[in-house]
Amino acid sequence: MFSAETVISDLNKIKSQAPLVHNITNYVVMNITANALLAIGASPVMAQALQEVEDMVSIASSLVINIGTLSSPWVEAMTLAIKAAIKKNIPVVLDPVGAGATPYRTETARRLLETGPVAIVRGNASEIRALVESGARTRGVDSLDPAEAAIEAARQLSRKSGAVVSVSGPVDYIVKEAGLISVYNGHPLMPRVTGLGCTATALTAAFASVNHDYLEAAAGAMAIMSIAGELAARNCRGPASFEVAFLDWLYRLSPKEISARLKIK
Amino acid sequence: MFSAETVISDLNKIKSQAPLVHNITNYVVMNITANALLAIGASPVMAQALQEVEDMVSIASSLVINIGTLSSPWVEAMTLAIKAAIKKNIPVVLDPVGAGATPYRTETARRLLETGPVAIVRGNASEIRALVESGARTRGVDSLDPAEAAIEAARQLSRKSGAVVSVSGPVDYIVKEAGLISVYNGHPLMPRVTGLGCTATALTAAFASVNHDYLEAAAGAMAIMSIAGELAARNCRGPASFEVAFLDWLYRLSPKEISARLKIK
Amino acid sequence: MFSAETVISDLNKIKSQAPLVHNITNYVVMNITANALLAIGASPVMAQALQEVEDMVSIASSLVINIGTLSSPWVEAMTLAIKAAIKKNIPVVLDPVGAGATPYRTETARRLLETGPVAIVRGNASEIRALVESGARTRGVDSLDPAEAAIEAARQLSRKSGAVVSVSGPVDYIVKEAGLISVYNGHPLMPRVTGLGCTATALTAAFASVNHDYLEAAAGAMAIMSIAGELAARNCRGPASFEVAFLDWLYRLSPKEISARLKIK
Repeated sequence: MFSAETVISDLNKIKSQAPLVHNITNYVVMNITANALLAIGASPVMAQALQEVEDMVSIASSLVINIGTLSSPWVEAMTLAIKAAIKKNIPVVLDPVGAGATPYRTETARRLLETGPVAIVRGNASEIRALVESGARTRGVDSLDPAEAAIEAARQLSRKSGAVVSVSGPVDYIVKEAGLISVYNGHPLMPRVTGLGCTATALTAAFASVNHDYLEAAAGAMAIMSIAGELAARNCRGPASFEVAFLDWLYRLSPKEISARLKIK
Repeated sequence: MFSAETVISDLNKIKSQAPLVHNITNYVVMNITANALLAIGASPVMAQALQEVEDMVSIASSLVINIGTLSSPWVEAMTLAIKAAIKKNIPVVLDPVGAGATPYRTETARRLLETGPVAIVRGNASEIRALVESGARTRGVDSLDPAEAAIEAARQLSRKSGAVVSVSGPVDYIVKEAGLISVYNGHPLMPRVTGLGCTATALTAAFASVNHDYLEAAAGAMAIMSIAGELAARNCRGPASFEVAFLDWLYRLSPKEISARLKIK
Repeated sequence: MFSAETVISDLNKIKSQAPLVHNITNYVVMNITANALLAIGASPVMAQALQEVEDMVSIASSLVINIGTLSSPWVEAMTLAIKAAIKKNIPVVLDPVGAGATPYRTETARRLLETGPVAIVRGNASEIRALVESGARTRGVDSLDPAEAAIEAARQLSRKSGAVVSVSGPVDYIVKEAGLISVYNGHPLMPRVTGLGCTATALTAAFASVNHDYLEAAAGAMAIMSIAGELAARNCRGPASFEVAFLDWLYRLSPKEISARLKIK
């Protein structure tokens, strides 16, 4: 049963094991996602050369695939890395950034999903819908839909792909076929900082490194993201000081704060 | 007539319309420019794959072309994107980062300009001079010349290309053929933060999305940049806390502050 | 004789000469390394296109080669840039990020070293060992070894390559054949911020621009890094506010603070 204890236990495992999280991600968020992983005690590495992705996967505990600034050579590297991760049996977390915004993104995200099995897909409502509904649209990388509108699409995607699907929004919905965890924490400033969705994906991979119940892992990552967001909002003066405080809180988050604040269903 | 009212009205339009600004920009500044666009209420997207730039332009309200870390495939994508933007009739804002520093940059910037018509060129004095004077030099990406030295070059560039030319420096000069707006706001810490010139370019594109008088749009962007810079400098302890405060102020800037502080001629 | 006076004098030269430091570095750290160079008064430029790297080197005072997110076209550019730097007689500083983690990184770092002579190699203990010992391992980009364990490897690397070798860790060891400077400053939060190793490399290049005794230059850069880290730790609330304070302190560091705090042997 998923609870604050699960989150606290996973976070402790991350701190003690320092899992190596291999990221093939977008240029915009590399710095913040690396810092967020370091903040919770994981060890990030970024590598996308065809000559080394498989070797890097071979020493990693999980793999992040994020298509935010995709291009042909990177997609080729992502494909190789996913195959190596599956062979090595480490979890792959896919972030279909901007799926629905252009056919290239939608098709690439779908193709990467089929290259899997992927352990977890993490996206906003528009992106998740774009993976299963024809005609779904995204406007750039920001969601046009409330997360609720994507629960059914998430279920469908989960059934089809076997992956846990984590839909972020004011409420986060983490879906595994019939299973559902809803995380009610968070703060409206979070979407005003670029890359917090991608950061959620990176932390999801860190949690999946230490907890192979991927529904719990995905929910745990959203829980600490959202709680750190709430705490950060208390003393900030805008999105940039919020981002600084958010990363500080990821580092300082105590079991007490997690227990006191977590609102799930 | 350009005034604080123009700036306030444009900023309100950005907040209510959340224009999608498509950026093909350099690796160094992607994060800060995305955050600055989010701070003022615009919606940034970064995409440079040949397979999708035209599709992304087709849903965007403006296009930023920034050659800060250019390479062949990116220049090809920039060219495609400019052509798509012109066909769709959305404004293109060009930032000729480091023009004059190497022949490759100077020539690429000139070629992209000819691919246009570009709505606005935003650069420092050395970069603007390099686009019209043979033998003008830049030292890396920092200007060697005072902005004043580039007003004549800016006029010449504007006449030749039809673009508004926005020259940033201690005083910002925004030139459209015979027209000139001078913005006297700003703070000496601004050039000590990497990417604030590129950020000005991105905000210029957001303003150009909602105000098709591009002289006003370019001046409005420089106005809020410079005012946010002044406000940020009041409580900072160096360039990094300045950057945090600057982004916070972009988010918090009120009509009252704009009216009280704007110094233009 | 290396002392606080050396560091203060070099820092003053950087502030007055604003040396142009050409960086071919990784995507994750471009922003923070550019900001750190600006903070101490240097002028950073990033350029990796084959069409311009030699031209950019021709106006630069030093060259940073960092393999953190390497790929074939970037390695080709690095090779061209090193050759141009040697021809122009400006110092090259190599950061073998993740050497030992994958064969591609280890081999590329060794090959770039042979393309030199490189003035300074700056890495963590695992990376330095990977350059001289067969079978040495790195886990991603974080060191598995204490810096002490790499002093012998650093000596060997220095003898073989002629380069100064700067090994960062809780104590930093800067080695030139028989010579050794140990810097005892620093703070445990430093490895919790992504890119501070790469930032050390960039600042090392700035110091090497103004002091051609590269043992002193490398030690001076580690000195100001570590002192800024100590000062930043006094008022921070986690790694992100630490990073902000660290960059602010790089900007504000006074001769008095350097003299009072420097602990070397």
